[in-house]
Amino acid sequence: MTGKTIDQLTIGDQEEFSKTISESDIYTFAGITGDLNPAHVNEEYAKTTPFKSRIAHGILIGGLISTVIGTRLPGPGSIYREQVLAFKAPVYIGDTITATVKITDMDTTKNKITLNTFCKNQEGVVVVDGTAVIHPPRK
Amino acid sequence: MTGKTIDQLTIGDQEEFSKTISESDIYTFAGITGDLNPAHVNEEYAKTTPFKSRIAHGILIGGLISTVIGTRLPGPGSIYREQVLAFKAPVYIGDTITATVKITDMDTTKNKITLNTFCKNQEGVVVVDGTAVIHPPRK
Amino acid sequence: MTGKTIDQLTIGDQEEFSKTISESDIYTFAGITGDLNPAHVNEEYAKTTPFKSRIAHGILIGGLISTVIGTRLPGPGSIYREQVLAFKAPVYIGDTITATVKITDMDTTKNKITLNTFCKNQEGVVVVDGTAVIHPPRK
Amino acid sequence: MTGKTIDQLTIGDQEEFSKTISESDIYTFAGITGDLNPAHVNEEYAKTTPFKSRIAHGILIGGLISTVIGTRLPGPGSIYREQVLAFKAPVYIGDTITATVKITDMDTTKNKITLNTFCKNQEGVVVVDGTAVIHPPRK
Repeated sequence: MTGKTIDQLTIGDQEEFSKTISESDIYTFAGITGDLNPAHVNEEYAKTTPFKSRIAHGILIGGLISTVIGTRLPGPGSIYREQVLAFKAPVYIGDTITATVKITDMDTTKNKITLNTFCKNQEGVVVVDGTAVIHPPRK
Repeated sequence: MTGKTIDQLTIGDQEEFSKTISESDIYTFAGITGDLNPAHVNEEYAKTTPFKSRIAHGILIGGLISTVIGTRLPGPGSIYREQVLAFKAPVYIGDTITATVKITDMDTTKNKITLNTFCKNQEGVVVVDGTAVIHPPRK
Repeated sequence: MTGKTIDQLTIGDQEEFSKTISESDIYTFAGITGDLNPAHVNEEYAKTTPFKSRIAHGILIGGLISTVIGTRLPGPGSIYREQVLAFKAPVYIGDTITATVKITDMDTTKNKITLNTFCKNQEGVVVVDGTAVIHPPRK
Repeated sequence: MTGKTIDQLTIGDQEEFSKTISESDIYTFAGITGDLNPAHVNEEYAKTTPFKSRIAHGILIGGLISTVIGTRLPGPGSIYREQVLAFKAPVYIGDTITATVKITDMDTTKNKITLNTFCKNQEGVVVVDGTAVIHPPRK
């Protein structure tokens, strides 16, 4: 139950995780965070916005990046230092989102890696972009 | 149901939201994102980590910042452009987290504000720090 | 709040429970078990499978059998010894599933009953078939 | 996103998944299945049973086996034919359960494998035992 240590990682390594975002995902996230912004949970309001329909919380979509980091690359034992999230396009109920993380930089002395982290929808549009800084698990 | 427009905002304005983080919040977030990293859902494993017990997902705590932005400052109609999250200290089951957002910069021409965004636990320890960039709602 | 004791039961007794399986049922079950197999939560992937769309977890459907046993026949106080589940056909979002349990054998000396347990969809197709072994409640 | 095909599998291969079972897991499973048997959701009633406290649904624990099969061994693309579950010992709120699946038999002609499937608690006690029959994904 331990992820990859820094000597098992290389620049360019990547992993991904995909999920179709359901209405219940958005409502459940709204419930646990308290972010019941009408853009997420009020379809009548959402019709009047530029997005025309309810959209997922950007931070929920960012959570799929955490899934890849925490379970696949580097995996369990990683310490998450930083996540930058740029919200590029809306995610609608029923969109299938693929979160990808890719190692772009490594500092073996500090046991620290930097990853490019992005989420695309089923049409290949980048919906969330950003970077993460992680300490991989120690041996 | 419209938040504050840029002419209703001033540098230094701040708002907050607080919640005690429950085991079910963490488990539910694990479920909707797929991040069942044992640090979050396996107490036996967690005992062997530097944190000694299960901890909340950093992104879940970041979600409380989204709550303040999307429901209070500026509120509904805001467009979330960017969120930087630095994870500073662990959040445990039962910790009461207060997320605060504070306007630090405004660009009226671009209808854009920058906020300092941070979360503290019940002892005043900063657990998440960062900044957000937001377009407040148009009139 | 006590179910039927063995002397109140007869071979042939049966009970059932029905529910329309929602997307949120499947997503919630995925979340609590960690089974985010793309066949259950990724519609784009599911389109490429023989099932053509997301399907419910077989074990979730099996859970409806547990509902009938634990709440109706024999009901509270029963001790569940064994459940055999054969997955016969896929269950899709929106299917209405009826779980039926029927006593097929009784051993009064050992206070043990055997039940035929099966689930059908709204078209009468058996989707899960199997048997259960139960100790009914003692007086 | 495809699991292992039969030629990538060998008798003796095994994988596992662990999770601390929370009260919210049990309540959520009760909610989606309708199995609100008081043994699971009524602490006052549970005190009067041989188990002395609320216990998890056996089928919920069986769901952890589905997690290992559907996500790890053989993984996505597998078709679940059969699951036998023998409930051996109670699982309490806070128990950490490890589900293990191990290939015990293979039939290459029928593209079918049989697995020994069992769940143990943090003290090594087998709480669920059984077997599964699976068709691994085709190439």
